[in-house]
Amino acid sequence: MKKLLLLAALLPSFLAAQPFGDSAERLRESALADDRLAWGILEGLTTEVGPRLAGTEAEERAREWAVRKLTELGFANVHVEPFELQVWVRGAERAEIVSPYPQPLTITALGNSGATATRGIEADVIGFDSVDELESASDSAVRGKIVFVTHNMTPTQDGSGYGQFGAPRRQGPSIASRKGAAAILVRSIGTDYHRNPHTGVQTFAEGVRPIPAGALSIPDAEQLQRILGRGRPVRMRLTLTPRQLGRGRSGNVVAEVPGTDPQAGVILIGGHLDSWDLGTGAVDNAAGVAITVAAAHRIMQSGQPRRTIRIVLFGAEEVGVLGGTAYFERHRNDGDVVLVAESDFGADRIWRINHALAPANEGLGNRIAALVAPLGIVRGTTAANAGADLGAWARAGVAAIDLNQDGTRYFDYHHTPDDTLDKVDPLQLRQNVAAWTAMLSAAASSAEPIERTSR
Amino acid sequence: MKKLLLLAALLPSFLAAQPFGDSAERLRESALADDRLAWGILEGLTTEVGPRLAGTEAEERAREWAVRKLTELGFANVHVEPFELQVWVRGAERAEIVSPYPQPLTITALGNSGATATRGIEADVIGFDSVDELESASDSAVRGKIVFVTHNMTPTQDGSGYGQFGAPRRQGPSIASRKGAAAILVRSIGTDYHRNPHTGVQTFAEGVRPIPAGALSIPDAEQLQRILGRGRPVRMRLTLTPRQLGRGRSGNVVAEVPGTDPQAGVILIGGHLDSWDLGTGAVDNAAGVAITVAAAHRIMQSGQPRRTIRIVLFGAEEVGVLGGTAYFERHRNDGDVVLVAESDFGADRIWRINHALAPANEGLGNRIAALVAPLGIVRGTTAANAGADLGAWARAGVAAIDLNQDGTRYFDYHHTPDDTLDKVDPLQLRQNVAAWTAMLSAAASSAEPIERTSR
Repeated sequence: MKKLLLLAALLPSFLAAQPFGDSAERLRESALADDRLAWGILEGLTTEVGPRLAGTEAEERAREWAVRKLTELGFANVHVEPFELQVWVRGAERAEIVSPYPQPLTITALGNSGATATRGIEADVIGFDSVDELESASDSAVRGKIVFVTHNMTPTQDGSGYGQFGAPRRQGPSIASRKGAAAILVRSIGTDYHRNPHTGVQTFAEGVRPIPAGALSIPDAEQLQRILGRGRPVRMRLTLTPRQLGRGRSGNVVAEVPGTDPQAGVILIGGHLDSWDLGTGAVDNAAGVAITVAAAHRIMQSGQPRRTIRIVLFGAEEVGVLGGTAYFERHRNDGDVVLVAESDFGADRIWRINHALAPANEGLGNRIAALVAPLGIVRGTTAANAGADLGAWARAGVAAIDLNQDGTRYFDYHHTPDDTLDKVDPLQLRQNVAAWTAMLSAAASSAEPIERTSR
Repeated sequence: MKKLLLLAALLPSFLAAQPFGDSAERLRESALADDRLAWGILEGLTTEVGPRLAGTEAEERAREWAVRKLTELGFANVHVEPFELQVWVRGAERAEIVSPYPQPLTITALGNSGATATRGIEADVIGFDSVDELESASDSAVRGKIVFVTHNMTPTQDGSGYGQFGAPRRQGPSIASRKGAAAILVRSIGTDYHRNPHTGVQTFAEGVRPIPAGALSIPDAEQLQRILGRGRPVRMRLTLTPRQLGRGRSGNVVAEVPGTDPQAGVILIGGHLDSWDLGTGAVDNAAGVAITVAAAHRIMQSGQPRRTIRIVLFGAEEVGVLGGTAYFERHRNDGDVVLVAESDFGADRIWRINHALAPANEGLGNRIAALVAPLGIVRGTTAANAGADLGAWARAGVAAIDLNQDGTRYFDYHHTPDDTLDKVDPLQLRQNVAAWTAMLSAAASSAEPIERTSR
């Protein structure tokens, strides 16, 4: 935590001394100075529910927790919109080098991984530096082997490495299965040096037989590379016994701050309630739940806004954006949503704002950018994409705003056992709430219509 | 690794440009500039052997590895001195809160922990802030419960917190057992915020029944505290199935750089070869093995020294300094050892030197302190203690020198799965070899007798 407080000390410290301006500025300053609600939600959800894998009883407890909390806080129209999903759960997870250098390796199964026999499998290991290298290997070189694929992901502030370097996890299992591999292990799609492997979803391509698919922690991936680098045949024993449980139930939790003008449209915000099972999902994504709920609550407390603010806490994001997709499919033709914004990238300070607004809303975009600039937030030049759960709205032409968190250390924790409460810095969390409160205040009260974008 | 290289950049960079002086200075500069042997030994032992728990087949492979390496390097009199020990091995390890907030917690067994039934036990949890608080609790409050004890260990450069804050691990299990506890869990004796619990030895007091004794990772310990803090009864299911395997075998690996003058006495140095089973024992203590062997090898390569340098790579240090004790008992009356020095605190830069020298050797002490000062090493004011494996020699009146490594991050890794090669910074490792080489050069060549201390 000491390191985190140090980071927080980098927040602009002159802010507290600034005189209050208009209402959005006052709300922003007040959130920065004293918000406790976001921390309370984050601490409560991660402590009283803990891990909450999609489709499990734990995710159901998270929905109950959220409904209770949102109701207590005075939000309107609090309800759950259920949907069905295929449920996958983790089993036993063990890997060990049998020869030439016997030792255990730390692994975890990737989402939708197939299973080994209960007693495990034993096979030779073949290593690749990329999925391209795996793709160009002959089937006979791969058949019956345990494939290992590495990559070179490095931390970036905008998190852009995750897409490019995530290919071993997303595409590797299907490619390896097509070539007849016994199993596949990837270097965790992450940036830390701890013995905590990163899980994450992957989906076998149509017609491809599911094989056991796991991630090695980064120290273990490098250990395996060193061992393979000795040039002697490497034999591994691998046990992964996850199961597909069949159809189950998830749901989106919805709450509203009702607006005064039903014709002005709805601002749709949120994060996701489910988490991977390994940690307590603090940065991914109790933080997004906490930030969006706390900001909307501040708007509600300051008086009824012109536009309705609707919070959706999505279910089953981690296993394939199922809650976001279900919500979009159910409500895409309601015609009331005019702006979307999502928080799903931890709780480190927001460093950049991106817009996807119609030309007619340039003034609104400028006002919001100016409102968050005192928090040290730069204006970006990329179109907002509204994240995983709300991206479909932006792609369909609804206006969007992204408040981008600093992702430098996000992939140290995300999808690992290390995603726990202690990874969130309370002061940086407040900066998030302040930025969201300012943005919502301006967007919910603006007199001009919020138009669809040209996309 | 990027962080580690940053730390290394703080090493005095002007050194490479200094003109060479006498032989010890030349040896020091050359080690700092280009030592690769220490890294090679560290990388080899952690990769080709991996974890090497005392008394196991893995520790035996480590001895074979070390004998082969020391022989290849040209050391004299390479041999193993075997001894027997009681062997304890880890079993299944699981903990979960049953109510009020069902969730798993990450634990590991402490050395010599007793076992639960295979199917585990279930009991209420009672929490204490210290072993003193546990000690003053009534037996009836503790009986049948799972005891949890926390502490407030914080990183220090000299590592001094480990003794004081380690009481829950060392004394807690015996106190809890005497009071009739079903089991005890302690907050890991460590300083990191990762889901990697710290194991470590504890020995049940005479006549005390062994109970299951484990450590929670620090995030898990704080999670349990938050849950206990809600004031509702906390029920836990705990499975720990370690076993005592009976008598087994360990050994000390010995090698020498023979001196020209048999009357001048032996300089006895070393580290320990065994490690805990959770990691690959890079900082604890392949690093000490690598540093002392590399430094002695540099002396050997530069010409035969006056005094014999004897390296002992001790077995079974982690489980109770068994190798160090066996060596001392066997050789205490040989009468040849005149100076002892141990490396067993990782491989971060040496920041301080402490002596325990007779008044007649003040000049030698001053020369050595001056030789290492250009490496940024300050002269301390505490008597050297020669560490765990060689401390008995210092206590018996043999002269000793401590080259103290920076311990600020040592207890982030030690005794955890995270003790792996990537935690060692190659540049800081070289600074260690440089300091050891300079010290050994001066001590092995000095014309004056090295006297016993007055202690």
